[in-house]
Amino acid sequence: MTATPPLSLEHMRLDAVLEGLARGDTAALARAISLVENQREGFERVLSEIHKRIGKHTTQRIGITGPPGAGKSTLTEQLVRVYRERGLKVAVIAVDPTSPFTGGALLGDRIRMEAVSLDPEVFIRSMATRGAQGGLATTTEEVADVLEAFGFDRILIETVGVGQTELDVAATAETTVLVLVPESGDGIQTLKAGVMEIAELYVINKSDRPGADKLKHEVEVMLGIRRGNAFAHVRPHHGRLEGEKVGRKKLPTVQHSNDWEAPVLTTVASKGDGIADLIAALDQHHEFLARTGKLVERRKRRLAARTRAVVNRAIRQWVWDETQAEDLLARRLDDVAAGTRTPYEVAAEVLAQVRNGT
Amino acid sequence: MTATPPLSLEHMRLDAVLEGLARGDTAALARAISLVENQREGFERVLSEIHKRIGKHTTQRIGITGPPGAGKSTLTEQLVRVYRERGLKVAVIAVDPTSPFTGGALLGDRIRMEAVSLDPEVFIRSMATRGAQGGLATTTEEVADVLEAFGFDRILIETVGVGQTELDVAATAETTVLVLVPESGDGIQTLKAGVMEIAELYVINKSDRPGADKLKHEVEVMLGIRRGNAFAHVRPHHGRLEGEKVGRKKLPTVQHSNDWEAPVLTTVASKGDGIADLIAALDQHHEFLARTGKLVERRKRRLAARTRAVVNRAIRQWVWDETQAEDLLARRLDDVAAGTRTPYEVAAEVLAQVRNGT
Repeated sequence: MTATPPLSLEHMRLDAVLEGLARGDTAALARAISLVENQREGFERVLSEIHKRIGKHTTQRIGITGPPGAGKSTLTEQLVRVYRERGLKVAVIAVDPTSPFTGGALLGDRIRMEAVSLDPEVFIRSMATRGAQGGLATTTEEVADVLEAFGFDRILIETVGVGQTELDVAATAETTVLVLVPESGDGIQTLKAGVMEIAELYVINKSDRPGADKLKHEVEVMLGIRRGNAFAHVRPHHGRLEGEKVGRKKLPTVQHSNDWEAPVLTTVASKGDGIADLIAALDQHHEFLARTGKLVERRKRRLAARTRAVVNRAIRQWVWDETQAEDLLARRLDDVAAGTRTPYEVAAEVLAQVRNGT
Repeated sequence: MTATPPLSLEHMRLDAVLEGLARGDTAALARAISLVENQREGFERVLSEIHKRIGKHTTQRIGITGPPGAGKSTLTEQLVRVYRERGLKVAVIAVDPTSPFTGGALLGDRIRMEAVSLDPEVFIRSMATRGAQGGLATTTEEVADVLEAFGFDRILIETVGVGQTELDVAATAETTVLVLVPESGDGIQTLKAGVMEIAELYVINKSDRPGADKLKHEVEVMLGIRRGNAFAHVRPHHGRLEGEKVGRKKLPTVQHSNDWEAPVLTTVASKGDGIADLIAALDQHHEFLARTGKLVERRKRRLAARTRAVVNRAIRQWVWDETQAEDLLARRLDDVAAGTRTPYEVAAEVLAQVRNGT
């Protein structure tokens, strides 16, 4: 926002990062991502510079979400392996929950994985949730932009947990995969309200364990019911007579209509079983989005949401860093604690001050 | 913020709600909570009116969180039952994840539970996450304030899911209970980074299933390791020699030190087993907080965080509802989609406009 002094060290470093990015230098990529993730000075310039190079239809952004213990990391690794065999460049963004205590220090496994990843065409990055309220989805999307501009063909966004924040993060991808395990059966009733409809692909992982078929059936019934009733207005089924029975396909080979019928796949990620089918389904969903114009439509909608989020972030930074809001808040906190002023009175006072430009 | 016309219908209704609240009328309570939950006109006035009546040391706010399928609802119902037997007034806020499609319509069970709850001393309220980014914790806390002012002795805040938003919500309580089940074992490694340290009480529910002892042991080891090493600086152990071995108590009867040793309890909520011990531990933690001055300290810190959140909310509403930001954004979106402008350029432009008071 403010002009950087032309000969500052920061500025020179930023130029070096941008040059490195253009050259395809992985060290520059890591530095650019750090800038963006931590919103350090110049991060908007990095994102502005790459903005024109994103939106290619050949890049797939894939969100992978599901409850803890579902084997998402193993599944992600298998996807990376197969994509690499096919000569594609792959990036992984792993979004982990982090407590205020540890600051992400317990992400040892991931960090080790990053260190040993000597394949320059694979890039793995962990991001901690770090309490950036409502901002994590935006930051994840910005990091994915940097990776796409750098030339990665597949960007896998893996989240831990099935809360609202994680869903928001997964939803920044064009295709979201929900990974379940036979043990999830108990939680299905609870999961379904919030999590089940967000996915375009369902995977029952560890499907060699008891209960896999039952869970698959349950998920299919649930998707069928929803599609038939409650969601009729959301996902209209063109070209199908009302009441016509629709069989569930194991893996739909071609989806001709304007609607996507979310398939329920089975995998045993630890053995690599079912990975090729999963990749085929991911490709199909991407083709479906491109063919129906939904890819362009989604990207446009996401850019609008992102711009709004960026405005909110800029306004918040302005209010707390450049106005007297922080001072006024500090002076009023004792009154709030004593019950003589309310948070709402203080908020009104701060807002009035900000509006008057003081 | 803006003055309500003195004879408006809104105003008269608001007065009726406030009078009803003061009289102890449950219908007025439900209406007050709706106002607050949906941030309808006048909600700040409701919250300001009750502000002086909160902060009583006899009210306990208890957060109950854990993965889907852990039996949190059953546990909550058992707590309600025992508290009622002891003559306490109990309120439950159930925070459920909700998709953009269903708008909470699938919360049928809960809604039925509310309808059949004829005991006027029990109040059950569901809240949907509804994508109020970063605002859910604030709203939950505001609803809890209304319930505390109304005279409830125990306020149970139950969240579904173990994501960042759910943790933020659970953390608005003074005591947070993390509920696990033997089947959670697999996910413990994943869970621990983000979720494990936030709780003051751990419950292994469904503890009659295989693996309960193993999980209890794992959680205890983990808590022990953390306390001994990584968290030494966060939770210093006064009055204990370095290297001194600390045995884990099954249920600590008295905690004398300035530190809380989080107990790991076992329950079979469906049979009511272990509920009395859980309630004893909850009471102990509350006494611990009161005795060490942490209760006042926590409430003060939470009020500060809340005030900041309320300011942010007010600023956001002002920017989008009362300035030309929305118009400017709409005019720029096509350029953003075409790649000729970036979200960051648009944000800078909107911010400049807001700062100039246009």
